[in-house]
Order: sequence, then structure tokens, then C-alpha cells
Amino acid sequence: MSSPEIEALVQSLSRLPGLGPRSARRAVLHLLKRRESALQPLISSLQAVDERMLSCGTCGNIDTSDPCHICRDHRRDGSLLAVVEDVADLWAMDRSRLFSGRYHVLGGRLSALDGVGPDDLAIGGLLSRVETGEVAEVVLAMNATMEGQTTLHYLAEQLDRFDITVSTLAHGVPVGGELDYLDEGTIAQALRARRAVG
Amino acid sequence: MSSPEIEALVQSLSRLPGLGPRSARRAVLHLLKRRESALQPLISSLQAVDERMLSCGTCGNIDTSDPCHICRDHRRDGSLLAVVEDVADLWAMDRSRLFSGRYHVLGGRLSALDGVGPDDLAIGGLLSRVETGEVAEVVLAMNATMEGQTTLHYLAEQLDRFDITVSTLAHGVPVGGELDYLDEGTIAQALRARRAVG
Ligand SMILES: [Zn+2]
Ligand SMILES: [Zn+2]
Repeated sequence: MSSPEIEALVQSLSRLPGLGPRSARRAVLHLLKRRESALQPLISSLQAVDERMLSCGTCGNIDTSDPCHICRDHRRDGSLLAVVEDVADLWAMDRSRLFSGRYHVLGGRLSALDGVGPDDLAIGGLLSRVETGEVAEVVLAMNATMEGQTTLHYLAEQLDRFDITVSTLAHGVPVGGELDYLDEGTIAQALRARRAVG
Repeated sequence: MSSPEIEALVQSLSRLPGLGPRSARRAVLHLLKRRESALQPLISSLQAVDERMLSCGTCGNIDTSDPCHICRDHRRDGSLLAVVEDVADLWAMDRSRLFSGRYHVLGGRLSALDGVGPDDLAIGGLLSRVETGEVAEVVLAMNATMEGQTTLHYLAEQLDRFDITVSTLAHGVPVGGELDYLDEGTIAQALRARRAVG
């Protein structure tokens, strides 16, 4: 067995999504052999993220400033708002570079199974943003999962009373798929062909 | 796009073996959502490893002390020495719990392609350890790759002048396989059935 310090690090790393115990061990050895070129830069990057990252009070994005750089970017179209479940979805969508509007992160999706109801999501904040009258179109960019679609229909109902366009991503998002695993091309296609809801 | 701090962290993480850019991004988000329970403990584990880990001057293992805990363990059989290419192989072999001897880490394998010759490996140190007369058997536990086997035969020749048993791992290690990817059972079987070389 290796030392407790190494075992602790293997454990920490193997809890990350995508890394099992074997690959965590390989990763640790990789780092140990490259202290100055890999281990120390990784520590610095993690510390920078830990010290500087904030949650945007407007959209829920994670960034070094609040409001985040997307909410502050005046070249972005403030009349177009994409609602996503998670920050990972926001990043995935933004990497497609096709969306010029702003975002709203729900922080999850409605789930009877996990006991997640409307009050657990940032829905009040979304409605407030729409109430200002600045938003002309809301793109409901939920994941194509059962719970994502339930959330989408719930939001479409809530948004029905506003005189705005409510759309959703077009086919192109595979059924059961999660945005964060899609390539930029698929997301771009789905955005281009987005359709009105309800 | 997310902020430069996050992109830098994604880059650092995606250079680890086993993590691509997508899974690195997922890992970062996982950490950002769990600062106290995941991000900060990971930073501490990495720092502990960076500050405390030493290379053992005797066997090449990485541990908090030099000599390492294996070299200092008097319950270990000092007459039995397993030679491995890499520290990961030492750990993999030690996890099988079947080997009661000590280790010698070469720090690589002979490779004409990568320009790795005998002087680049810890072969002098191995011969010195055998010369003390304490070693009765050397288990050449190279990977079952072309270069591993070339290294094995080179070492078997070097060890020929000593009055010791030179053995290697039995079939059980798949051809082309690397120790670090094997389960403990396979390694244990290969150790049990180890055979004499040359
Ligand atoms: Zn924002
Ligand atoms: Zn040692």
C-alpha cells in the first residue's frame, strides 16, 4: 500500500465524476512525477477557483464577478433569455457560440423522486426578470429527460401570462441526453431550429 | 465561456490521464458545488502530497519517509526482491498482498524508440543491492509489453553472474497488459505461478 497521504488523495480524486479508483491512482502518480509542471499548477488553479469564484445573483452562473461577465456584457441581447437547469448547461450552451442572449440557471429540475419542487428552483427570479418587460423571448433549454421536460412544461405554464415568445430547443438533443455531453455542433443545430412551446 | 480561472482548472485537470476536457469540466462543476466537502479537501490532499512525499533512496518508492515504509518494515523478506518499472506497478503489486519481499523501481523500461538506455534506469542500484548478498531471489515483474520484456531479458543477463534465483511473473498478465490496470486477483495468480528466467 502507498502512504495515507496518497490514499487520501486517491480517494478525493476518485470521487470526481469520470474518475474511478484506478484512474485516480494513475492521476496521482502522474502528478507526483511532475510536481512543478502539474501538481503545483493544479493546486494553484484549485485555490484560485476556491478563492475567486462567485455565484451570479442575477443568472446563477459561476464567475469571478457578481453580476457575471455574461450579465454585464452589453453586446448580449437582453431581450433573449435561455433558461437552463445547471451551470454546466449554461457553459455547454455558451460554447456553441450561437446564443447571443443571457441565461437563467434554475439550479436543478422538478423531481418528485428527489423531492425537488418549484420552490427549490430559481423560478421566482426568472419570473421577476421577465416582469421587468425587457425579455421578449425565453428559450427553455431543459435537458431532454423526463424531469427536464416536466420542468419545461411547468415553466411554460408559468410564463403563459406574459406577452412573450416561449421556445424550446429543437430536435437535435437526443432523447435522454444531457446538454453537457453534447458536442457544440448538435447544440448549435438544436438552437437554430428552436420551436415555440404550448 | 466560463471564466479564465475555470478554464485554467479545466485545462490542468484534463491533462491528467483518464480525464478528457468534458469530464474535467464536469469535475470542476462538481467541485464548485461542493467547496467545503470536495474542493477544499482536495486542495489539502494535494498540498499534503506535495509537501510530504519523498522518493525512497533505496527502492524508488514514493512515501513520506526515506527509506520508505516498505524498506523499513522488518517483517518483510529482505531476501526477496521484486523489480518493477514504475511506482504504480509497485503499488499495484503490493495491493495483491501476496508479495512479502521488497521492491526496486527501475523508473521506466529500455526503449530504443524513446531513447531510454540502461544508464537511464536504476539498474546500478539494483546490482548494488544484489551484491550485498542479502538477496536470494529477484522477481522481474516487468510489464508484458515488448519493451518490458526487452528490459526483463537485459536484467536477467545482468543478474546471471550472481548465485541467486531470477524469476518472472507467470502467465496471467495478459500480453500487452500493464500491471497497474490489472485486478489484484490476476496479479496474485501471476505471482503464485512465477517461473525461473533464462
Ligand atoms: Zn450572470
Ligand atoms: Zn523503499
